Amino acid sequence: MSAPVGLICGSGRLPIEAAEAALADGREVFLVGLRGAADPEIERFPHVWVRLGEVGKLFKALDGAGAREITLLGGVQRPSIKDLGLDMTGLIAMPELKRLLSGGDDALLRGLVTFVESRGYRVIGVREAAPGLLAPEGIFGAHEADGASAEAVSAAMSVLAALGPFDVGQAAVALGSRVVAIEAAEGTDGMLRRVTRMVQKRRLRRDGRGGVLVKLPKPGQDLRIDLPAIGPRTVELAIQAGLAGIAVAAGGVLIAEQARVIAMADEGGLFLAGIPQGAYGAS
Amino acid sequence: MSAPVGLICGSGRLPIEAAEAALADGREVFLVGLRGAADPEIERFPHVWVRLGEVGKLFKALDGAGAREITLLGGVQRPSIKDLGLDMTGLIAMPELKRLLSGGDDALLRGLVTFVESRGYRVIGVREAAPGLLAPEGIFGAHEADGASAEAVSAAMSVLAALGPFDVGQAAVALGSRVVAIEAAEGTDGMLRRVTRMVQKRRLRRDGRGGVLVKLPKPGQDLRIDLPAIGPRTVELAIQAGLAGIAVAAGGVLIAEQARVIAMADEGGLFLAGIPQGAYGAS
Repeated sequence: MSAPVGLICGSGRLPIEAAEAALADGREVFLVGLRGAADPEIERFPHVWVRLGEVGKLFKALDGAGAREITLLGGVQRPSIKDLGLDMTGLIAMPELKRLLSGGDDALLRGLVTFVESRGYRVIGVREAAPGLLAPEGIFGAHEADGASAEAVSAAMSVLAALGPFDVGQAAVALGSRVVAIEAAEGTDGMLRRVTRMVQKRRLRRDGRGGVLVKLPKPGQDLRIDLPAIGPRTVELAIQAGLAGIAVAAGGVLIAEQARVIAMADEGGLFLAGIPQGAYGAS
Repeated sequence: MSAPVGLICGSGRLPIEAAEAALADGREVFLVGLRGAADPEIERFPHVWVRLGEVGKLFKALDGAGAREITLLGGVQRPSIKDLGLDMTGLIAMPELKRLLSGGDDALLRGLVTFVESRGYRVIGVREAAPGLLAPEGIFGAHEADGASAEAVSAAMSVLAALGPFDVGQAAVALGSRVVAIEAAEGTDGMLRRVTRMVQKRRLRRDGRGGVLVKLPKPGQDLRIDLPAIGPRTVELAIQAGLAGIAVAAGGVLIAEQARVIAMADEGGLFLAGIPQGAYGAS
């Protein structure tokens, strides 16, 4: 039996999906559920429950399972220090943890990676632990992209590439060669709702379905801890906005509930495309 | 008496303001009101009314007034050909006009400029006809910008500069060093409403008032026919969004109803700043 990959599980379906995908890929898994965050369904797999501050228990469980590679999955609310449930190892690491908890979200995650790696574990991303969850290359639904959509993908990619150096905008919507919405702090869902409103108010003119959502990772983004994602909700909002399709970075964007995403897009008439890595210049 | 500048007047207050500013600047004016568009108040000034297709009447009136320089001001709905009210000169120019009316908005305006200039007139911008309407350099209201706001202006300017080559985004909102909203097809007002919503939903965290709207012309934008603008509505929405201020390109952004804009910003606690041309690299 090979060494399992340790999945540190926050909220949402992603940890379960990753565990299934890793097993399907022939890898063993060991799940560490964060109390108050992880889905009880993790108990279907070899697992342990810990509170965020039970650092000693966490490392002991990972060591017991023989896991040296770790992946962080799903959401975690930033805890207050009194809710951490610190054990002795956690208490000793407290000054270090406290520093982490005072930074921004990115700093927190990067800090956690450093903290865990300094204990001799290797932090790997979903890309490595469960590559089947990422967008494949090329068309992966039933519908093909037409010429106007190809033009839209190219226009949105150019704008996203120009925004690469800045901490904004992993996504944009283009209609033909015109970029009509650029994501910043509102998030992809908020941007798609805006496109719907602009269409309703006839601020965007188009004949029938049209426009493409393009989502890419940022150049230099640490995909181990911060992977752009789409899911059923994205497809639902894209259908409401009347888009012709969704194009994402192949191998660089996570598709949550991939089977459902494809079924919804197929039924809604949307194409789904994975843009080859060479074309979007991922790190 | 010097030759008057011919103001071709579409809808809105801008033609009236431009006429007043030009007079205050010591220039004579002659207003050509487009029927169905221009404000009747243009009759306070030397004027003539024409329908869009009365090309012969237009040129005759301009020649009669001795106007060789022309400025296009205010909005015009793209007319259908039967609503043009063509006179003989218009009829003769029809093939040329028809070509103009079939293009995009930018193409239409550029085409009109070429058409008018081919008749021996010179098309000048508001910048030249009534420079007093443009944003001045430096702080032009009662409030100063603090360090966080200066950082926000710089962050937003970097993003807008990167978007310069694309036909999107003349405006962005930044909070400290983070750009939180980028304008595309929704327009500046739509973007400001989005910032208000993000604050209400606590998607943007800040202590009290904060954030800056930055608006600049695009590199290479023809400011004779397409001048970015702010006005009382912009200030109102910026106050609702809780912004700390507004920074625009000095000499590159029109301030509609400048006195009212300044009074509203002063009362609302917003700073108003004109970014020097050297800093934003206008054409």
